[in-house]
Amino acid sequence: MNTLLLALSAAQLFRFFSFRHSSSTIPALPNNKVIFDKAVAAPNIDTIVSLAKRRGFVFPSSEVYGGLGSAWDYGPLGVELCNNVKQAWWRWIVYDRDDIEGIDSSIILNRLVWQYSGHEATFHDPLVDCRECKSRLRADKLEIPDEARGTPVVELIQQKRLKCSNCGSNDLTEPRNFNMMFRTTLGAAAAEEDPSALAYLRPETAQGIFINFLNVQTAMRRKIPFGIAQIGKSFRNEITPGNFILRTREFEQMEMEYFVKPDAEHLKLVDEWVEQYLDWFRGLGISNDDLKLHEVPADELAHYSKRTVDILYRYFPERAEEERQWEELMGIAYRTDFDLRSHSSKAVDAEGTRVNPDSTEDLSYFDEATKQRFYPHVIEPAAGVNRTVLALLMDAYSEKSNDKGETRVILKLSPRLAPIKAAILPLAKNKPEIVGMAKAIKRSLQPQLRAVYDDTGGIGKLYARQDEIGTPFCVTVDHQSLEDEAVTVRDRDTWEQERIKVSELAEYLQNRLKE
Amino acid sequence: MNTLLLALSAAQLFRFFSFRHSSSTIPALPNNKVIFDKAVAAPNIDTIVSLAKRRGFVFPSSEVYGGLGSAWDYGPLGVELCNNVKQAWWRWIVYDRDDIEGIDSSIILNRLVWQYSGHEATFHDPLVDCRECKSRLRADKLEIPDEARGTPVVELIQQKRLKCSNCGSNDLTEPRNFNMMFRTTLGAAAAEEDPSALAYLRPETAQGIFINFLNVQTAMRRKIPFGIAQIGKSFRNEITPGNFILRTREFEQMEMEYFVKPDAEHLKLVDEWVEQYLDWFRGLGISNDDLKLHEVPADELAHYSKRTVDILYRYFPERAEEERQWEELMGIAYRTDFDLRSHSSKAVDAEGTRVNPDSTEDLSYFDEATKQRFYPHVIEPAAGVNRTVLALLMDAYSEKSNDKGETRVILKLSPRLAPIKAAILPLAKNKPEIVGMAKAIKRSLQPQLRAVYDDTGGIGKLYARQDEIGTPFCVTVDHQSLEDEAVTVRDRDTWEQERIKVSELAEYLQNRLKE
Repeated sequence: MNTLLLALSAAQLFRFFSFRHSSSTIPALPNNKVIFDKAVAAPNIDTIVSLAKRRGFVFPSSEVYGGLGSAWDYGPLGVELCNNVKQAWWRWIVYDRDDIEGIDSSIILNRLVWQYSGHEATFHDPLVDCRECKSRLRADKLEIPDEARGTPVVELIQQKRLKCSNCGSNDLTEPRNFNMMFRTTLGAAAAEEDPSALAYLRPETAQGIFINFLNVQTAMRRKIPFGIAQIGKSFRNEITPGNFILRTREFEQMEMEYFVKPDAEHLKLVDEWVEQYLDWFRGLGISNDDLKLHEVPADELAHYSKRTVDILYRYFPERAEEERQWEELMGIAYRTDFDLRSHSSKAVDAEGTRVNPDSTEDLSYFDEATKQRFYPHVIEPAAGVNRTVLALLMDAYSEKSNDKGETRVILKLSPRLAPIKAAILPLAKNKPEIVGMAKAIKRSLQPQLRAVYDDTGGIGKLYARQDEIGTPFCVTVDHQSLEDEAVTVRDRDTWEQERIKVSELAEYLQNRLKE
Repeated sequence: MNTLLLALSAAQLFRFFSFRHSSSTIPALPNNKVIFDKAVAAPNIDTIVSLAKRRGFVFPSSEVYGGLGSAWDYGPLGVELCNNVKQAWWRWIVYDRDDIEGIDSSIILNRLVWQYSGHEATFHDPLVDCRECKSRLRADKLEIPDEARGTPVVELIQQKRLKCSNCGSNDLTEPRNFNMMFRTTLGAAAAEEDPSALAYLRPETAQGIFINFLNVQTAMRRKIPFGIAQIGKSFRNEITPGNFILRTREFEQMEMEYFVKPDAEHLKLVDEWVEQYLDWFRGLGISNDDLKLHEVPADELAHYSKRTVDILYRYFPERAEEERQWEELMGIAYRTDFDLRSHSSKAVDAEGTRVNPDSTEDLSYFDEATKQRFYPHVIEPAAGVNRTVLALLMDAYSEKSNDKGETRVILKLSPRLAPIKAAILPLAKNKPEIVGMAKAIKRSLQPQLRAVYDDTGGIGKLYARQDEIGTPFCVTVDHQSLEDEAVTVRDRDTWEQERIKVSELAEYLQNRLKE
């Protein structure tokens, strides 16, 4: 690519042409539209990994020490993209509505939260050890011979009919449950000495919402129905993380719990939220073709859920079988009153026994209109920041190639999600007046939109870089700008250029960004 | 207070008066300015704890289970205040400048990061156990009799001259070092079985920046001097957390590492950053009287630092001794090249031995201009989100009392930090046209500024609530609004009211918010 751009002659670079909406002559800018014109198929995740590292979106975490099993750090552009997604979600779910409040609860909660939520007892994977090669494997992922289907895994292991996926040995231990919550110890006591010091890193943000239900409802004088939303990190001790930022042990969630009066009709609310989220993802720029729904079968539902619909994204377009191309982007679960009851001091089971003798508060709700007290039911749309970002990067990725096989990447991110809205580029970095004018324009735009100044290359190279990171507009300051106080604005997607007066630039860009 | 407001007669509520800039008559709104006029002294932290819980800023974490030793969750208003502080910092430190990049690294990093940063060996508190009452105490906080000063603590404990601060016994164990990093275990192996699975929750965000130095510098084509900034959670296993959100085990940092060429003059850069941060805090609304500097004595400096200046805030104005009123708000440290060298594959010590045989990369920098290769030095301003929020709440807190001793709280937050910019209030909630107009105004303002609709009380009560949470403007829709398409805008600090056309409201508020 660099070779190609360098090959553009000075004549090409300084040729004059005219553009739409342009009243003055536009000087001195290459327009490579003619050269690149062949669209290329959708990328696989590896394409994104490479672009993400090269351009400062996502780096392998702890890379100087050989990494850390599928952990990733977000670079200068990645952190902006994540923040833009989080802010878009917060505006949509909290600000634009009148019935949802936001909170931010702790990552480390009282251990009793996880005891009564059911996570201590049930949030685990079944693991087996291979006695031969010492590998640790997930029992539910072992390959089962066709003739053995239906027989319980424990029996198959005892009968030596299952094999280690690493070495092929059939000498496997019986499955034991491995809890996926990360453990730690609070205070100076070691956990061995004092079990009360044991704590977990939260595996979901949802429980921080449930235990704050009464605090939020009271402080904000809320009546049902209303929701509570939260963005924050969660941690799951996955045995097999992988596929870039799709499955990591540390990840960021955007969860919302919507509290409603118990009602047989409410399973339908799941469909309403599914539709709202599909609209939201499409609005962010994800193609409808890459989204589909999956109704979770009854026997696979989590212990708290009566119904769950997953929204899947086509993360693996390169796989031959259509069925294997999809992975969960988010889930919308009907959690009933399971969680609020579980944390309530007065809730009782079918035998009339209190379900929670440790809780000091009752999370029931008194309906003034009907004079009824009840435990609200909950609809939970739970989305991941990282999975959303990966889907956005994949959907935005496009390539143009020329006849020589040289390829140029254009990241067609929605302008409101793009890490940088406008790059201000001086055509000549050795000309102090041009540099000064470009920097001044950057500073004047900055309060209204994210702008950067860049002079670390020739103009063609700078354009290519901005295309590759999804910047909707490049603003070039050239020799003529010093005289006509105008600049050239180049569109990322069309590569069309317009000459705009500096005095009108901010308004022009803001209008274009709304398109 | 409620009694007082209820005591306002209907005549008072519906009296007409005129206000500045107002061309039309303003109907029907109480102005309590006359009643409340006595300023009250600065609050202590307990005052803030109470307000914070009552109004939805901060709740005790895991409260339904009796809390969790000084952990706190941020409610609907607290999360907005925190986000506004973080966004203000990010804009100031990343967007408004051209020399700082942002990142977001993982909380759980490779254990080697903490081995080579020095945290595994040195990030600890000395603890003693009381053999009598089994309390665990910090050895450096034990009370030392005047005549014993100068004698090492170990000797004093052996001589039984120090007492347990809990039960008074002098039967204490010798101090042992307790590392303040939270430990956890990655993957299915328990730590006892496999020490390579041991991991820590980061005690500072800084190391995530150092290990990404080369990735950021390369991807963003940066030349020295430049900085890398990060906002994120850190965790320290404090033996004695406390004082609300001032010292918690889980907290949020805003750290920036500014990389410079080694130079004897650079200790002065600490002063420059101190001045910049003082300006920033003052710009956020913190009074200069509540800020002071503390030059950390040489023998108290952290192992990596050659110079550190702390900015202190007066968190304890109620304490008699002026000296005990202050606590660290943030620190600005000159970290030399300690961290980059420690993580570098080629760095050697005085004897020529490689300091880090585990690192796969060298974090030195090649200066094109001088053709020199060196390890950059670092200036680090490290601030806490939670400590900043506490200082802002304390400085914004004010009270007005009347002759009957009734008190009204006004939270004079800087408008750009206030969780809500405008509250849209219907004067009559049983009048559908008024309610509809108020809700429509909320929706029309929302894209530009954070607005809420509230009808859960009489207008006097609603005003009082908004004063207490720091909302700069209340917008009231009344009967006359239906005819003149105008609303009354009330100022939080002056309680002055203006009649504004709905069509001009957004622009009016945006201008006032910039004041």
